Amino acid sequence: MTNVKKFSKRVPQSLNLEELVEPLVNGSRVALARAITLIESQQPTHREAAQQLLQQLLPRTGNSIRIGITGVPGAGKSTFIEAFGKMLVERGHRVAVLAIDPSSSRTGGSILGDKTRMETLVKEANAFVRPSPTSGTLGGVHKKSRETMLLCEAAGYDVVLIETVGVGQSETAVREMTDFFLLLTLTGAGDELQGMKKGIMELADAIIVHKADGTNEAPAKKTVSEFKQILHFIQPATVGWTPVALPVSSYKKTGLKDVWQTIDQFRKLTTESGVFEQTRSLQQKQWFKESVTDALISRFFESPEKKHLMKELEQQVAASELTVEQAVSKLFASSSS
Amino acid sequence: MTNVKKFSKRVPQSLNLEELVEPLVNGSRVALARAITLIESQQPTHREAAQQLLQQLLPRTGNSIRIGITGVPGAGKSTFIEAFGKMLVERGHRVAVLAIDPSSSRTGGSILGDKTRMETLVKEANAFVRPSPTSGTLGGVHKKSRETMLLCEAAGYDVVLIETVGVGQSETAVREMTDFFLLLTLTGAGDELQGMKKGIMELADAIIVHKADGTNEAPAKKTVSEFKQILHFIQPATVGWTPVALPVSSYKKTGLKDVWQTIDQFRKLTTESGVFEQTRSLQQKQWFKESVTDALISRFFESPEKKHLMKELEQQVAASELTVEQAVSKLFASSSS
Repeated sequence: MTNVKKFSKRVPQSLNLEELVEPLVNGSRVALARAITLIESQQPTHREAAQQLLQQLLPRTGNSIRIGITGVPGAGKSTFIEAFGKMLVERGHRVAVLAIDPSSSRTGGSILGDKTRMETLVKEANAFVRPSPTSGTLGGVHKKSRETMLLCEAAGYDVVLIETVGVGQSETAVREMTDFFLLLTLTGAGDELQGMKKGIMELADAIIVHKADGTNEAPAKKTVSEFKQILHFIQPATVGWTPVALPVSSYKKTGLKDVWQTIDQFRKLTTESGVFEQTRSLQQKQWFKESVTDALISRFFESPEKKHLMKELEQQVAASELTVEQAVSKLFASSSS
Repeated sequence: MTNVKKFSKRVPQSLNLEELVEPLVNGSRVALARAITLIESQQPTHREAAQQLLQQLLPRTGNSIRIGITGVPGAGKSTFIEAFGKMLVERGHRVAVLAIDPSSSRTGGSILGDKTRMETLVKEANAFVRPSPTSGTLGGVHKKSRETMLLCEAAGYDVVLIETVGVGQSETAVREMTDFFLLLTLTGAGDELQGMKKGIMELADAIIVHKADGTNEAPAKKTVSEFKQILHFIQPATVGWTPVALPVSSYKKTGLKDVWQTIDQFRKLTTESGVFEQTRSLQQKQWFKESVTDALISRFFESPEKKHLMKELEQQVAASELTVEQAVSKLFASSSS
């Protein structure tokens, strides 16, 4: 909220977008942060300005690999993102880290809000760490995170890491806006699967068995080969790509290169097959379609009477008093009157 | 089509529903077949009558166990349904067999249309075998199959078997209208998984390794234990129920009782936990919501101009010329003008 207020103060009514576009495109993290704050603002004038800004930047978007990251509780996501991000920066990449957190309106809900947990990465000139949006429904957060991702690409970040907090539908939301999806797990005699949200494995392009160091190293490798077997039976998240499992230690910095090589191989393979572009195009169209449907629904149910009628009809349908088709007819009949 | 014509001839304009309701409720298969034909009819007068009929019957619906059945190619679904259905009839049940087939508008697409494949079951007084609807989109077929299922329940069938043809989204459609979902597979050194549509296993409450007889018996049992291990890692389709795997031979009539016992156990367990009713209530509400959304979309895109504009905007969004929010605004702006 403080950011929004600051922004509102500095750019009150007339907003010169050019003053924001140029420094942003030239890599200013301050300009990028301000642009994101504009995107996240709920004020109608800001929202319009945000869309104009975004449109101007659209031709510069899309040139990154978008990597979604989720993990079982205690898997060490932040530690992995720091180590992985740092390695990428050292290899000459520009890395942006975002988070999708539908729960962050609760106090302390945001993981990345706690910036101290990304101490090293935050200091890097070629890294940008953004706490998750401070409020909103998942749909809203989802939309803003997509737009934030586009801003980061326009600012020249060629790797975008999007962390989920593992709450609600956040993994699906992140899967639907990324090219590659990483799942972090731990070893420990099946315990790693106890903590795993069911259905998550099916979203992953790669599974990392994290903290594969010290006495954990051997069990981690065993878990990796177990995952390899299981992955064989699961629907691949990306057409033509069999998900891989890898041991990684962020502490000992082992396996991080393998992860990047895997992602690189994935990008090459799916680019050659056309799946990379197809998936992005589908995601884009899907985003548009969902936005149209959301808009239709929210317009239709604008009046409290309509909402009330829907609830009533839902009860009647559940109580077998009305057929579904009759209930739909009644709902629409009330519009014309 | 011949059925519809016959029906139209016999009940031309004024339709006395009572003449249909009473024999249907009293178990007349002829009345049930006519009622289904009425439900499937596209004529506006028929559609209205169908909804009235259905509303009158609603209080008599819901008293069956709804079992979805799918299988890998060559798994012997029809043979299984015949053997399983016959056993249930012999145990005093009344069994209805339906199919969801979004492809049946193609010639020869319908499996159950070929009634000769259910020769034994068709002859049973307490069995009712209905070929799938002859045309329509999956959404339409889905809706009609749900309504057909309700008619069967009103006619006193206490077991409804709904077969999918494994085309398109038919499994998901059947999963969303049934209490229990069965997946038929075969043994054969991993081959059974080759033919398995990815993501199907996640829908199943039970997996049957079929044709478990002769030299196949031992390998089938091995496959069953392999499935048991895999099922441990997969998100259960029903809350609180761990999917089971069973060997079955429809030829030798072995394992059929186990399948029924499993379903019975499932029903008891989920009834006690409340999951049975919760799932049905959710399915019902979901059906209503989807119908409202479908109606909103089809009304909004009634005009060809709107459809055309949507396509155009989709292209502009995909080409990064417009932001998604701008495209949505443009689409809705064209309504008010």
